[in-house]
Amino acid sequence: MAVLRHSCGIVGMFAAYDVVPSLHRALLVIQHRGQESAGLSVFDGDEILTARGDGLVSVALTKNKVAGLSGKCGIGHVRYSTTGSKSLVNAQPLTVETAQGTVAVAHNGDITNFVNLKKSYLECGWSFLTSSDSEIIAKILSKYLARLNDPVEAIRCTMSELDGAYSLVIMVRNRVFGVRDPYGFRPLCIGKANDATMVVSESAALTTLNLDFVRDVAPGEIIEITDNCIVSHVTNTNLSPAHCVFEWVYFARPESIIDGGEVYDVRKRIGATLAREAPADADLVISVPDSGRAHAIGYSLESGIPYEEGFMKNRFADRTFILPDQKMREDAVSTKMNPIKSTVNGKRIIVVDDSIVRGTTLVKLIRSLKSAGVKEVHVRVGYPPVIAPCYYGVDMKSRSQLIAYNHSVEEIRQIMDANSLAYISISGLVDAIGLPKNSLCLACVNSKYPTKISGETFRR
Amino acid sequence: MAVLRHSCGIVGMFAAYDVVPSLHRALLVIQHRGQESAGLSVFDGDEILTARGDGLVSVALTKNKVAGLSGKCGIGHVRYSTTGSKSLVNAQPLTVETAQGTVAVAHNGDITNFVNLKKSYLECGWSFLTSSDSEIIAKILSKYLARLNDPVEAIRCTMSELDGAYSLVIMVRNRVFGVRDPYGFRPLCIGKANDATMVVSESAALTTLNLDFVRDVAPGEIIEITDNCIVSHVTNTNLSPAHCVFEWVYFARPESIIDGGEVYDVRKRIGATLAREAPADADLVISVPDSGRAHAIGYSLESGIPYEEGFMKNRFADRTFILPDQKMREDAVSTKMNPIKSTVNGKRIIVVDDSIVRGTTLVKLIRSLKSAGVKEVHVRVGYPPVIAPCYYGVDMKSRSQLIAYNHSVEEIRQIMDANSLAYISISGLVDAIGLPKNSLCLACVNSKYPTKISGETFRR
Amino acid sequence: MAVLRHSCGIVGMFAAYDVVPSLHRALLVIQHRGQESAGLSVFDGDEILTARGDGLVSVALTKNKVAGLSGKCGIGHVRYSTTGSKSLVNAQPLTVETAQGTVAVAHNGDITNFVNLKKSYLECGWSFLTSSDSEIIAKILSKYLARLNDPVEAIRCTMSELDGAYSLVIMVRNRVFGVRDPYGFRPLCIGKANDATMVVSESAALTTLNLDFVRDVAPGEIIEITDNCIVSHVTNTNLSPAHCVFEWVYFARPESIIDGGEVYDVRKRIGATLAREAPADADLVISVPDSGRAHAIGYSLESGIPYEEGFMKNRFADRTFILPDQKMREDAVSTKMNPIKSTVNGKRIIVVDDSIVRGTTLVKLIRSLKSAGVKEVHVRVGYPPVIAPCYYGVDMKSRSQLIAYNHSVEEIRQIMDANSLAYISISGLVDAIGLPKNSLCLACVNSKYPTKISGETFRR
Amino acid sequence: MAVLRHSCGIVGMFAAYDVVPSLHRALLVIQHRGQESAGLSVFDGDEILTARGDGLVSVALTKNKVAGLSGKCGIGHVRYSTTGSKSLVNAQPLTVETAQGTVAVAHNGDITNFVNLKKSYLECGWSFLTSSDSEIIAKILSKYLARLNDPVEAIRCTMSELDGAYSLVIMVRNRVFGVRDPYGFRPLCIGKANDATMVVSESAALTTLNLDFVRDVAPGEIIEITDNCIVSHVTNTNLSPAHCVFEWVYFARPESIIDGGEVYDVRKRIGATLAREAPADADLVISVPDSGRAHAIGYSLESGIPYEEGFMKNRFADRTFILPDQKMREDAVSTKMNPIKSTVNGKRIIVVDDSIVRGTTLVKLIRSLKSAGVKEVHVRVGYPPVIAPCYYGVDMKSRSQLIAYNHSVEEIRQIMDANSLAYISISGLVDAIGLPKNSLCLACVNSKYPTKISGETFRR
Repeated sequence: MAVLRHSCGIVGMFAAYDVVPSLHRALLVIQHRGQESAGLSVFDGDEILTARGDGLVSVALTKNKVAGLSGKCGIGHVRYSTTGSKSLVNAQPLTVETAQGTVAVAHNGDITNFVNLKKSYLECGWSFLTSSDSEIIAKILSKYLARLNDPVEAIRCTMSELDGAYSLVIMVRNRVFGVRDPYGFRPLCIGKANDATMVVSESAALTTLNLDFVRDVAPGEIIEITDNCIVSHVTNTNLSPAHCVFEWVYFARPESIIDGGEVYDVRKRIGATLAREAPADADLVISVPDSGRAHAIGYSLESGIPYEEGFMKNRFADRTFILPDQKMREDAVSTKMNPIKSTVNGKRIIVVDDSIVRGTTLVKLIRSLKSAGVKEVHVRVGYPPVIAPCYYGVDMKSRSQLIAYNHSVEEIRQIMDANSLAYISISGLVDAIGLPKNSLCLACVNSKYPTKISGETFRR
Repeated sequence: MAVLRHSCGIVGMFAAYDVVPSLHRALLVIQHRGQESAGLSVFDGDEILTARGDGLVSVALTKNKVAGLSGKCGIGHVRYSTTGSKSLVNAQPLTVETAQGTVAVAHNGDITNFVNLKKSYLECGWSFLTSSDSEIIAKILSKYLARLNDPVEAIRCTMSELDGAYSLVIMVRNRVFGVRDPYGFRPLCIGKANDATMVVSESAALTTLNLDFVRDVAPGEIIEITDNCIVSHVTNTNLSPAHCVFEWVYFARPESIIDGGEVYDVRKRIGATLAREAPADADLVISVPDSGRAHAIGYSLESGIPYEEGFMKNRFADRTFILPDQKMREDAVSTKMNPIKSTVNGKRIIVVDDSIVRGTTLVKLIRSLKSAGVKEVHVRVGYPPVIAPCYYGVDMKSRSQLIAYNHSVEEIRQIMDANSLAYISISGLVDAIGLPKNSLCLACVNSKYPTKISGETFRR
Repeated sequence: MAVLRHSCGIVGMFAAYDVVPSLHRALLVIQHRGQESAGLSVFDGDEILTARGDGLVSVALTKNKVAGLSGKCGIGHVRYSTTGSKSLVNAQPLTVETAQGTVAVAHNGDITNFVNLKKSYLECGWSFLTSSDSEIIAKILSKYLARLNDPVEAIRCTMSELDGAYSLVIMVRNRVFGVRDPYGFRPLCIGKANDATMVVSESAALTTLNLDFVRDVAPGEIIEITDNCIVSHVTNTNLSPAHCVFEWVYFARPESIIDGGEVYDVRKRIGATLAREAPADADLVISVPDSGRAHAIGYSLESGIPYEEGFMKNRFADRTFILPDQKMREDAVSTKMNPIKSTVNGKRIIVVDDSIVRGTTLVKLIRSLKSAGVKEVHVRVGYPPVIAPCYYGVDMKSRSQLIAYNHSVEEIRQIMDANSLAYISISGLVDAIGLPKNSLCLACVNSKYPTKISGETFRR
Repeated sequence: MAVLRHSCGIVGMFAAYDVVPSLHRALLVIQHRGQESAGLSVFDGDEILTARGDGLVSVALTKNKVAGLSGKCGIGHVRYSTTGSKSLVNAQPLTVETAQGTVAVAHNGDITNFVNLKKSYLECGWSFLTSSDSEIIAKILSKYLARLNDPVEAIRCTMSELDGAYSLVIMVRNRVFGVRDPYGFRPLCIGKANDATMVVSESAALTTLNLDFVRDVAPGEIIEITDNCIVSHVTNTNLSPAHCVFEWVYFARPESIIDGGEVYDVRKRIGATLAREAPADADLVISVPDSGRAHAIGYSLESGIPYEEGFMKNRFADRTFILPDQKMREDAVSTKMNPIKSTVNGKRIIVVDDSIVRGTTLVKLIRSLKSAGVKEVHVRVGYPPVIAPCYYGVDMKSRSQLIAYNHSVEEIRQIMDANSLAYISISGLVDAIGLPKNSLCLACVNSKYPTKISGETFRR
């Protein structure tokens, strides 16, 4: 069970009607991608209006806060801070006044040359009000908007200065653009109805809003949407894509389809592959809910070992302070997840988890299973050992936190007190995803980075 | 999928150490039983201190609000309003000053003679500050505490005036009691460690806090707990119990054990019974998450038809205002729950739900399945048709809301646009629960009420 | 400068139109009488609706909170806690359900037999949800409402059980009453227009609302108001009144008229009396703003010594936390009030204050004057030395806090480092008020209490 | 009575100890200069930390919000929005990252070439995140900080691009500067103790914090402060100063000293001058509290006509929503200010006000005096008729709002229904202030602007 924070979710929309309700709903659908702040910007025919705030959509974008907003085009954002602190100033969309009027920008990803870019612009006499990489994107864009009439050209020039992972939605007054970096690290797809178009991080939002899925934005592509059409401004790129594998394994919602891969199906196939690669003699397959459920069902269907719910998750315990108990009878994990004793007692159990990054939670869950009378615990992990940090927007930046960088599989098994432990192979994972290996970013499991990162191996 | 609100959850604890952290954690575990308000009262050696508030435990009992509280005994409450409005004045525990000092009371259930009791006491010159039935319980108890030295006797006399469903925790200065009405409608169980005892609505809280489950409080029993022992003050009762069946089917957490029935197992057996009583020729079994999942797994295991996740629930959409969309492209249900198209497309699906009360949500879910390309939908329901209102603490008070009171099964099937629809039989349900039929309250499905209710059939 | 907290302010209104705006405004006008909580109850034709909250009217009764309220009669309250803690449960109006329907009560004063009354009712089997004396008033009233058809009779019987200071507004469903205890400790007056009547603590509210002042409620009187008339239900009383002198000296707003005494004029006459009783050879008269300003002007006019503003008060420093400064360069007083150096530098100054209770602030103010270059400070105090506690609703309950109980005038002068110090005489004060001495409560300055208080001298 | 909003208040401090408590207190003292937002920035030895928020200091800078801040140097700000909307993004200090590290800026005044400056920088490719003129100051400063080693030089160059009114405090990492524009429109003064120095808008803050007043910052001067010394970086300027006259008349606190003029004394002299220029035969002098009190006392002392308090101000009615009353019996003014009838009834009254800008409030106050029985009302105004807008930070931007631009004095007298009306003369005002006429900005009363304003007369 990864407990990673995503980098962000973004959405842009243009319709023949007020887009605020739809943007609000879309943000709810992609809320899992960012829970620290949320925001909306719309062009009301005259100016860009923005509502932003800390916390979930339900807190940041209350009825009161969006009451004054309406417009036929707009963009939205939900956010985790991978760079920039948690302050409100960093909430997005970021709006800036430029030579071509107000521009709003929302960003998902990490700019790898952020520090160098910032340094060189500071030396040019620029200054920065926030610590987020979205501000530098907006400022470089502003620079080009002052020189070039065509916003598309300005975006293209901006992209030429940026390295790393970025899916963007950009609103230049009343024009809405969707942009994906040349590697396509982070997802971005396009939806359409008769009188509305949308670009959004995940297709689940299109389903909810009853828009037809059109296609993914291509790596390096700039898309412009209007109320009835989609214009593609292709940027030529000879680069192989490098889609982040973690989107399918953990980040995205099961019902989303990302770059052609149906997430739930990918996860089931991962489970099935695990069942073939690492069978176990056991009575029951259980998952670590909710993220490992599809993997576990796949394992069960392939192995023929029955699937059951082995843990009960307490959704009220998230985001709640838990008082330290001086008796130390139990820890916070047991408030958040409990084994269902009647299911697991006396059984040999296969626990399927989507991934192991730090491994701390799983240790406690296995202990709780043993307390509940489980005879054997066989851990099967739907993601290869994570041995290298991510520079493209996933919150695992330091090798010291990665249990698999520091320990062998056998050592991890002993730490977890599991009867057996097996990870899926890299090739098994790639096959389950169903895309060519050279179109995926596997840097965190094979240390080969698609872009140049100082001190790391460049894959090409 | 019932979307019923529970009546409440209660907890009382006595320990050799400060009970506030444990009570707070226990309330998080039973939070599903009441999400409108939460409260804690502890005796600090000198007086009873109380923190109370509207909303979830995370909002009502923040770090700040419980900061000043500590004590070796205390009680807690989470609340839905079945009687009384949602105002803070009605949040519990209710504390009253009496002739024997301060008394705190927390209540789960519905007092059926509430209106008559209130009327007669008003005529005696009493007045009421709140509209909750907990106040009348506290006041009658106060009356007897002024006359009788022994709080146990005072509680016994109070019980003699009350009809209906009530599980209570009562703290008379530093003495903590657990009480269950003579029919045992609502659950209440006892847990123990070396230096702590607890009474609580559901055993899941004991597991979380690492206390041993001792037993359920018996119908009509008064329990007193101290830091190291449990004293039973039995009240003789010749009545058959009438445990609310809905606790096993929907209310309780799967890992709880209620009056001997392990909830997850009961639900799986219900699913298996349904598979035998109402088989269907289909490709897949899915559930309406999260409450129908165990039932569906039971159906799958018995029928051999594979279980899969067919819907993705959006946990962020609860408790969030959703802006009305003038295009009416979609409704709130689709923001809250989406089919996983890759799982269900082109398939014949069995949808297992725990129960149908109003039926409105299921109609929309079936429509969304059909939009996702499902060929056939066979609905199987783990609870017989609900045809009569509940007077004992479940939020279904009016026949007009009950779809099965107003329509035949075939009519409901047509309304739902399902290819087939079947409910479990009453006897099948009783067998799945595993307790004698005459120890259960089945009034909502057979119209036979365990206690006298004006205008309804008395079962005995 | 007294920094005493008042006991409360109350208002009741009946009109041919919605009274909520008028009650809200009246509470703003009497806000100085209570700043800890505020509340409103109105009868909407069907039931009594209440809004209540902690803090100032601006916080407790926001637009949102009163949005749902409307009605042609209602009562309101602003509160300081002299008994009862600061909790929301103690905010008033207190509403109780009784045999004659809902009753709302708001109270200004202190019930001196509160403890005994409570004890005897607890022994009768009653219980109390709050710690305020308003609850016992409401409960005793409820007792009589169950026995007596006539609410007036019920109020009369309730009054027969109460000792001490109480001005009350009571709403029995749609009937609004104003009540004043037999001594008339706390003020209550009546106003009228064509289509509206009001009872309120201070006449300033009538002026603001453009109602005509009719008269004060008489000691021991029960008044009923309707939209066009005022009915007096006189309760015979042979007692001499005992109006609280502090109302004129400090509590009431300068533009109010209380029991015939125009507050501003009384204060000016006090100042003039002081000038005659205790002249001083000085250059300037200044006041401690804002409460001592009228006294100082009176002193100036009588003595011919010019009046000037000597201190500047910072109204933003109230109710603001002030960080402790490790350098201890200054204290909170200097943030709240600063001398105007250009006015006072090099001068001999007469500082006129309305009263001295604890004396702590004045010590610091005199020190700040000396730092600002004042040559001589002559303190003149518009109230005799306070030597005895108040049991009737003024927040000075303990002799140990009273500087004049513990020190002679000369000692106080030395503590204050004043060049001279003089208090007005009791007879001078009585003359300035203009009412017969035997109609005033002077207990805090002469230790003779109008009602029997255990351990204190009874004046008759 | 002007009801103008000030442009802002600023403070900077360097000490041998933590300056947060002192800055917080200083902001409370200058809170009257800005009540819409407040903020603090301190350098903690490593980085600049900032707390900012909407509302009063008590709301924006709560204990919690400043808890994490400490440092030996820092700056603070209280704000009214004269440019820029009320959003949090515009709260100051504004912090920007520059080539020389983080810089914090706080600003009081209005940049008159703001629109042109912004336009030209937008055309250079810059972008702006806020709508405040403080951002452009910070950005131009950043431009120079990238080119010039010396922050003083960078500030000097920045000043060369700015026109209009600006008093600034600037913190470049751990260096604190105070800056005043070459005309010295807005005040800024310097205070000192052994181990601390401060620059602040008003000397009242120095008194409160027990710092010695050193002198005013000179027009065009750049001051640097450290924990024990003050370094002046004089900028040569041949311009005559243009100190805003309104500071003495209305904005500043009475106990402050601005550019040598003691505010309270100036106001008294204004009142005395009025008494000589425009005597009236009357019984009483009253003021419009609180801003007109010193002027009225001056009038009284000069004329020999007694001064009294004629109005009672309700400090609770500020910042409180007031429900519209359908009976329209009264308006909000009467909730905020009431005549003291016993003072004014039957009298001939001189009402002294500090200034008349729009005149709306005074109309209502005179009406309320007449209702209270006043026989004659003679209005005397301590500021000449305001006939021209202010471009330097006072909130009177449009001629259409200025009653004296649109009406003669006699017309205004009729509108006000006053028996007589007189304004002080310009020369009388200048003499009362005591500075040479050519060192004052009198543009709003004589239409001669010290700096070039398109469409207005340039005074030199």
